[in-house]
Amino acid sequence: METLGYWIGMVGTFAFAVTAVLAVAPRGVDVFGATVLGLITAIGGGTIRDVTVQAPVFWARDLAYVWVAIGASLLAFAAHRAMSRRSIRNTLLYLDGLGAALFGVLATEMVWSLDFGRPLAPILLGVVTAIGGGLIRDVLAGRQTLLMSRELYAIPILVACTLEVVLLTYLPGLRLPGTAALVLVAFGLRAAAIRWSLAVPIWLTTHSKED
Amino acid sequence: METLGYWIGMVGTFAFAVTAVLAVAPRGVDVFGATVLGLITAIGGGTIRDVTVQAPVFWARDLAYVWVAIGASLLAFAAHRAMSRRSIRNTLLYLDGLGAALFGVLATEMVWSLDFGRPLAPILLGVVTAIGGGLIRDVLAGRQTLLMSRELYAIPILVACTLEVVLLTYLPGLRLPGTAALVLVAFGLRAAAIRWSLAVPIWLTTHSKED
Amino acid sequence: METLGYWIGMVGTFAFAVTAVLAVAPRGVDVFGATVLGLITAIGGGTIRDVTVQAPVFWARDLAYVWVAIGASLLAFAAHRAMSRRSIRNTLLYLDGLGAALFGVLATEMVWSLDFGRPLAPILLGVVTAIGGGLIRDVLAGRQTLLMSRELYAIPILVACTLEVVLLTYLPGLRLPGTAALVLVAFGLRAAAIRWSLAVPIWLTTHSKED
Repeated sequence: METLGYWIGMVGTFAFAVTAVLAVAPRGVDVFGATVLGLITAIGGGTIRDVTVQAPVFWARDLAYVWVAIGASLLAFAAHRAMSRRSIRNTLLYLDGLGAALFGVLATEMVWSLDFGRPLAPILLGVVTAIGGGLIRDVLAGRQTLLMSRELYAIPILVACTLEVVLLTYLPGLRLPGTAALVLVAFGLRAAAIRWSLAVPIWLTTHSKED
Repeated sequence: METLGYWIGMVGTFAFAVTAVLAVAPRGVDVFGATVLGLITAIGGGTIRDVTVQAPVFWARDLAYVWVAIGASLLAFAAHRAMSRRSIRNTLLYLDGLGAALFGVLATEMVWSLDFGRPLAPILLGVVTAIGGGLIRDVLAGRQTLLMSRELYAIPILVACTLEVVLLTYLPGLRLPGTAALVLVAFGLRAAAIRWSLAVPIWLTTHSKED
Repeated sequence: METLGYWIGMVGTFAFAVTAVLAVAPRGVDVFGATVLGLITAIGGGTIRDVTVQAPVFWARDLAYVWVAIGASLLAFAAHRAMSRRSIRNTLLYLDGLGAALFGVLATEMVWSLDFGRPLAPILLGVVTAIGGGLIRDVLAGRQTLLMSRELYAIPILVACTLEVVLLTYLPGLRLPGTAALVLVAFGLRAAAIRWSLAVPIWLTTHSKED
């Protein structure tokens, strides 16, 4: 179970870095900038989490995250044209969603187990872990961040991280299967959003009336 | 006194979150993005301060800051049209100024009491606490930051934080009344800037000659 | 040797702050904004490094960095027209490159000596120390960051930081002269890039075919 989570985490790290490079490639970026942006996307969110809870940053203890992110960025840089094909890009979007789901829910579980600011902080830091790296990437690349778009990206993670806190509070005995199920819930919602191009409904945006 | 400061801090937190949501609402933002931006504006500056001085982040010990910021963001999202009316908006601007004054001066006092980088660091981190959250908000929302505008927002706080360090150095016996007075000084200057639309004089900008 | 490094560090701090202010001056910035951006550029990268490795931030222990950065920013603000002249600006570019080379390689050496995430983390944090402050400045000022440009700025530092790790791993007895030599290598590459306007070759960018 732990091992499975670890390997899914590596797949997620790979997908985060590759999708980051593909996102900035159309603007023209050199191999250095692409790799830095891929790496930041992959490990940025978890770094903010660790610095906030004052734990040692996760990638310093296990450099595999960094190697995978660098390797994935270089691969995506070299093959960005081929990887931008619809089918591959779509697969990567799903893997990116799986990574975000896993990182978010596991971060909530980790912050909870540190007894840090329960019950709200584990939820906040779960979401930050999942989307923080992408936010930094967009800011550094001069792109609009997902906070200003109606894409259904973070809300599935928010839902799952909140349910994770409910789980850990009321059903601690089900921690392991429950956490695994909630990763699937977050990923399922995200996958549905990709598959059917779901967006945040207009009445939940500030443009609900004039549009 | 402590209690009064605490409640003013909650009012400031409320105002920070509400003004943040109102600032980004015209661009079209969903309820998730609005709440994240409101929350970051309210607690971002203090978080940078705590991480820099390596103290536990303030909101993890007292989640009331987070609850108030989330509640205020949701309220502002739901009522952003009504709250954008001139009279309410103006009241919020003053409350935002009061919050910034309080957070800035109290942060200087807190960093000083940690004996961290005296005398300069308490001033720097006082200013960062007051304006840091707003800077992150503007960057994430793709807005011009206040560093690039001539609005008289941060300078009153810089003045009061500097005077706070003078107070703590030379008149430590007057710590409590002096700190309260300096919050009022920072707020008074900011209120005057709002009331009479004061800006940084042109000769204190790099466009002093050609404009 | 230590003392020489310290003084070069101060020159680098000075150059970082001055070039930052000159970079944002054409957009119109007031004395407060200019100084904040100058200061962030000078100490931002090292601050991210220290927070990441959970060491006390360097400038809190030695405020000379802060004083020099503030003084340099005010000087550059007051004299930005004179300093924008080609000859002075060029000299500052070289000093900025010297500072970046020194900060990067010394950061790698410092993180290595903390036994933090060897061998990759010392390289990453060396690069972050050298370019992190400039990235924050560009984001806060609404400028395109160097990650999105083909300027040859960070790659010389990456090369030297990587070689520094090779040096510390295989030739620890040559730490002192080797480190000094690698600062010169990073600076020499950057100086060549300034002198002959070298850019990252087009085949190392994502626009390699259509341009």
